[in-house]
Amino acid sequence: MTRLLPARVIEKKRRGGELTREEVEGVFGGFLAGNVPDYQMAALLMAVHFRGMGAAELDALLELMIGSGAVLDLSHLPGPRVDKHSTGGVGDKTSLVLAPLAAELGLFVPMISGRGLGHTAGTLDKLEAIPGFRTHLTLAEFRSVLEEVGVAMMGQTEEIAPLDRRLYALRDATATVPSIPLIAASILSKKLAEGLQGLVLDVKAGSGAFLPAVEDSRDLARTMTALGNARGVRTVALLTGMEAPLGRAVGNGLETREAMECLAGRGPEDLSGLSCALTGEMLFVGGLVADPGEGGRLAREALAEGRAIPRMARLVERQGGDPRVVTNPGLIPLAPERGVVTAEVAGFVREILPVSLGYGVVELGGGRWRMEDDLDPRVGFVLAVRTGDRLEPGDPLGEVHAADVKGLEKGRRILRGAVVLGPEPPAPRLPLVRERIPPLA
Amino acid sequence: MTRLLPARVIEKKRRGGELTREEVEGVFGGFLAGNVPDYQMAALLMAVHFRGMGAAELDALLELMIGSGAVLDLSHLPGPRVDKHSTGGVGDKTSLVLAPLAAELGLFVPMISGRGLGHTAGTLDKLEAIPGFRTHLTLAEFRSVLEEVGVAMMGQTEEIAPLDRRLYALRDATATVPSIPLIAASILSKKLAEGLQGLVLDVKAGSGAFLPAVEDSRDLARTMTALGNARGVRTVALLTGMEAPLGRAVGNGLETREAMECLAGRGPEDLSGLSCALTGEMLFVGGLVADPGEGGRLAREALAEGRAIPRMARLVERQGGDPRVVTNPGLIPLAPERGVVTAEVAGFVREILPVSLGYGVVELGGGRWRMEDDLDPRVGFVLAVRTGDRLEPGDPLGEVHAADVKGLEKGRRILRGAVVLGPEPPAPRLPLVRERIPPLA
Repeated sequence: MTRLLPARVIEKKRRGGELTREEVEGVFGGFLAGNVPDYQMAALLMAVHFRGMGAAELDALLELMIGSGAVLDLSHLPGPRVDKHSTGGVGDKTSLVLAPLAAELGLFVPMISGRGLGHTAGTLDKLEAIPGFRTHLTLAEFRSVLEEVGVAMMGQTEEIAPLDRRLYALRDATATVPSIPLIAASILSKKLAEGLQGLVLDVKAGSGAFLPAVEDSRDLARTMTALGNARGVRTVALLTGMEAPLGRAVGNGLETREAMECLAGRGPEDLSGLSCALTGEMLFVGGLVADPGEGGRLAREALAEGRAIPRMARLVERQGGDPRVVTNPGLIPLAPERGVVTAEVAGFVREILPVSLGYGVVELGGGRWRMEDDLDPRVGFVLAVRTGDRLEPGDPLGEVHAADVKGLEKGRRILRGAVVLGPEPPAPRLPLVRERIPPLA
Repeated sequence: MTRLLPARVIEKKRRGGELTREEVEGVFGGFLAGNVPDYQMAALLMAVHFRGMGAAELDALLELMIGSGAVLDLSHLPGPRVDKHSTGGVGDKTSLVLAPLAAELGLFVPMISGRGLGHTAGTLDKLEAIPGFRTHLTLAEFRSVLEEVGVAMMGQTEEIAPLDRRLYALRDATATVPSIPLIAASILSKKLAEGLQGLVLDVKAGSGAFLPAVEDSRDLARTMTALGNARGVRTVALLTGMEAPLGRAVGNGLETREAMECLAGRGPEDLSGLSCALTGEMLFVGGLVADPGEGGRLAREALAEGRAIPRMARLVERQGGDPRVVTNPGLIPLAPERGVVTAEVAGFVREILPVSLGYGVVELGGGRWRMEDDLDPRVGFVLAVRTGDRLEPGDPLGEVHAADVKGLEKGRRILRGAVVLGPEPPAPRLPLVRERIPPLA
């Protein structure tokens, strides 16, 4: 690869052209090999931000990203391998519910997850709220847990999709993160390294989503389903609402508690409903049911009967955690300072602002501004209200969990600001699942 | 400057925002100081390509570029300092005509020029076709020639606008050269370092121009005049046609010969006309005439009388060249192989393709593919026809000047391909000066 060629490829993309597979391999592969400098890749990424990528060039990039690292071969497992990915929201603890539930219903769920950053949390941080739980597994340990339990949950390793990691670091430094094709390829490069047969995508839309505009979310969902199906993985996406936190708990440990309650059939309706809808889709793309509605019914029955609890307990135990938390979520440590916030005036809950609560958790020390930050899994919020509720003065809005008195006061202000009251009732809540993008193949 | 700030500035520009002066200084100044890495600057430059720059932020960038290097203080000179810049075309040797002419008419012309690259040539290469002529002067030598002769012509030095040079190298490698605000700032950063009171811009439009579309040329011309006037330099721009080569000679030495003929009042009408129009504008922005039309008349008179010849001879002599070439252009070396190309069929000259002849000179060894290439100043083409001429079979199209027989054959094919004949006459030629963008201030 000469110095001239990358500049020509950048120019082609800048003009809106579609790169050939050879051009994608030359420039992105050259970048991985150290022959194309960061500054040329940065310019190309910005051009991609403005011009987008077509299906064929994006598939070439995705293939290169997957192939840059290890790909799990799980073909020996006696059942379909299916995973779920969410683009991230506030209060979203569905992974902790649906992973053991889907495994209980016959799937193998090799779930490699991420950490929270900014206002959205990550599954790994929630799992680590369980005393002793290890998310740093070797690939061999991961396979072993998966074989025995039907589900294993771990963090990204250095071996998976290193090209994605290098590109992401550059995108982060060059303000090119919110590019739909690059987001799509980044997500799928990690998920498709799991050796899946099926994948369910939960693409959030609304004020608490990474991409708030539903048009952008739909675009991302369509891009990812097309890419996944083209690579032979049955991929379906649900566009779901993120105008308010999912469930009542926001904050890692509090969310893990709520997920355990949900596994016992006692979860809030929105969390249980979405978990079962996603599980139903997982069973569908895994080929265990003829339609996702049937899968959803199986999931709701199993959840109501608490049938996934033993499997979750085995997973926790096998990954070093205290399995008793599954049946006794009270064992998950609480923050020392707790206080209820009440309504000062009468009115309707018009909005519960997910971004305020998401950043609120970071303010309380329970999230990250930067990837290297430590976090306190105990802090957060438990809502007592939902959008549309009618309140009298003194009615509780929710509870703040904080590490100290100062945090408690801060948390009170944040919670009060996040629950927006008004004299008129808000528009009726939309159903959580807005659209479904079916597998193309 | 933290690592975060540049990413935020890039994001702001990516979203179409206008950067503050502090943001421009922080990021571009940080880049110059080595604190902002190339990859962040590359992403910002690509975002600028797509989003453009507003007047205030571009002025901030221009100020930073000028201030990154030496600025000539020529305030001691007993007359107005005025220069001309052309965006580059094929056959354009006006600088060699108008610089001594404007000096003869009372201006001081401190002209710092560039070299040719690709299909467009540069003034320095034409000057160096004169035996002995030195374009590498120190700033002290340059000042001394200017003081004595009223005009001095040299190449860019390391001391002038180093930020522009570093940005240009990055733009070249990242396909972000054709961005109108960046082109405007790059041109003006070098010209305004000359300590000018007035500047005339010849912005080419048409197939032979760097920016062929007249809308782009107009945009560039307006951006530059606004920037120049805002910085206190009376700046005017002419939009001129570049659908065909200017004059009859294309190739450095041949063009220098033609320029000397023009100084003697024997130049082709288009070259003489444009040189006088630009000189008239120079006299106008220099405040020596009340309107550019009056300036143009003075220039035409002086040119017809050959009054700039002694000054050009002094300039050549003072910069180490053989001054006899001015009155005897035949002393400029010719290529050894020469041959006339004739029309094979009858017809009208519908087009003379400037890009074909420009690249043709490079093919013959008289130009550069890359900046580090050497060139043979002797080779090129001398046209015998103009657009609209009616030809019979056997009438000459022009002459090829080549270094060897192989080059001569190649040159014949190139010249034949560049002169497009057809049975119908073409549309009448437009006047060369299409639009004038007056000084705003």
